[in-house]
Amino acid sequence: MADPDGFELDPRLAADTRRVGDLPLSRVLLMDDARFPWLLLVPRRAGRVELDDLPRAERITLLDEIDLATRALRALVAPDKLNVATLGNVVAQLHVHVIARFRADAAWPRPVWGVGERVPYAPVEATKRIARLRDHLGLS
Amino acid sequence: MADPDGFELDPRLAADTRRVGDLPLSRVLLMDDARFPWLLLVPRRAGRVELDDLPRAERITLLDEIDLATRALRALVAPDKLNVATLGNVVAQLHVHVIARFRADAAWPRPVWGVGERVPYAPVEATKRIARLRDHLGLS
Repeated sequence: MADPDGFELDPRLAADTRRVGDLPLSRVLLMDDARFPWLLLVPRRAGRVELDDLPRAERITLLDEIDLATRALRALVAPDKLNVATLGNVVAQLHVHVIARFRADAAWPRPVWGVGERVPYAPVEATKRIARLRDHLGLS
Repeated sequence: MADPDGFELDPRLAADTRRVGDLPLSRVLLMDDARFPWLLLVPRRAGRVELDDLPRAERITLLDEIDLATRALRALVAPDKLNVATLGNVVAQLHVHVIARFRADAAWPRPVWGVGERVPYAPVEATKRIARLRDHLGLS
């Protein structure tokens, strides 16, 4: 479904994730990888690639939504560390990774990208996690 | 040299970088790796690890300094993509990577961390690059 702005989620992002919901600026996605509690924030604006493709006011909104995502992950899983990044080397559409990391996780201390194979959630686990995320993001 | 706040740069960050200068919030460092034009921003506040260890006003200042670093790198090297990230799995002291990426670089399209061995700049190249960065960051 296109937003008024003409935003459409990149199909590669859609393929690897489950939709959590929409914050004022960003679509929130859960990476469908049970190894890492991992959110993506995708500003619902067409054609944005770099952070500074957003006007400053929207960058600040994105910063606040990163903060909200951070707090939601912390409330859910009490991580040892948060990783926050916008890379976009493979999928250009502007998206921010917010990842809860643990000293015992499958990639620690390396970054998570490109490590092993994605392990999709069991459907019931995904549904449960998304419901709890929606609570913590104020989307319920 | 300790800042009034008691900030001291983590020695592991110091060992891999050259100092560019201080913005209002962050110390700017050039990763001493000629393969990737790569800046680090380190907020000069003691004991900060996660983004939300900074109060919101300082997070916004950091966002503006990321923007300045982005524009400086773009003016210097015209990258294909910018990568911006705060990970901190190895060095906990809060630091933000701002990295100019090229489709022909040594890691593309992967992230740069952990790829091969760092290639230090020739001293004259480092000096020249830092001088140009200082110009573009308004530090000259």
